[in-house]
Amino acid sequence: MPVQRAVKPFDRKQSLLPRLRVVVGGEIALGPGKVELLEEIHAAGSILKAAQRMSMSYMRAWTLLRTMEGCFRTELVTKNRGGKSGGSAQLTRTGRAVLRLYRRMEKDCLKATRPGWRQLRRYLNLKKRR
Amino acid sequence: MPVQRAVKPFDRKQSLLPRLRVVVGGEIALGPGKVELLEEIHAAGSILKAAQRMSMSYMRAWTLLRTMEGCFRTELVTKNRGGKSGGSAQLTRTGRAVLRLYRRMEKDCLKATRPGWRQLRRYLNLKKRR
Repeated sequence: MPVQRAVKPFDRKQSLLPRLRVVVGGEIALGPGKVELLEEIHAAGSILKAAQRMSMSYMRAWTLLRTMEGCFRTELVTKNRGGKSGGSAQLTRTGRAVLRLYRRMEKDCLKATRPGWRQLRRYLNLKKRR
Repeated sequence: MPVQRAVKPFDRKQSLLPRLRVVVGGEIALGPGKVELLEEIHAAGSILKAAQRMSMSYMRAWTLLRTMEGCFRTELVTKNRGGKSGGSAQLTRTGRAVLRLYRRMEKDCLKATRPGWRQLRRYLNLKKRR
């Protein structure tokens, strides 16, 4: 195991976030927010509920979804427009594959950047600001 | 060499951008924009010129720099306030190390995500939109 500097309880929290962005023809096909939306739809089985969990409007969720789907060959989500319940939605096979690949790339990125991150952290000021 | 799908001349451009973000105590210490600013200061030897190249105000460049430097133990840029020329600025040893480590982490991330990206690309729709 690598030796890490001891992190004191009052130190500021430090993190490296791999915010991968997939761009197609100038449009953002996937990024952290869009992928979170896919994940929430998968968990909730509903676009409305996913939007609510992410504190975004139903309209906004649809817009993000439309942008994403314009960048892929097939649908990412099957939509069944419903009544009061807001309908149901499930990720398609492609949707699930895309979600899985994105999360895998994030993990691969974090793992690969670990040596650099360990070095970079030494330069950080973790003291609380005066 | 991996076999790639032939990209037709009219296909939409696709790319994977590793937008790494370093967060310290809720503040963004480093991200693509801040690192580009460091790089431009390094190239131009001046905060004013770097700001101009990035089409941002001198004030904005200073604000970004102040946020960055609040997250590190030592200065990233030595500043010599000047007259008409806007003074000169150079990256400190820490500034150069931080820049180098960030770019290295980007490369490490791109390399590590290549297998996932190769798979993900197959799902993309590269036809121009009607």
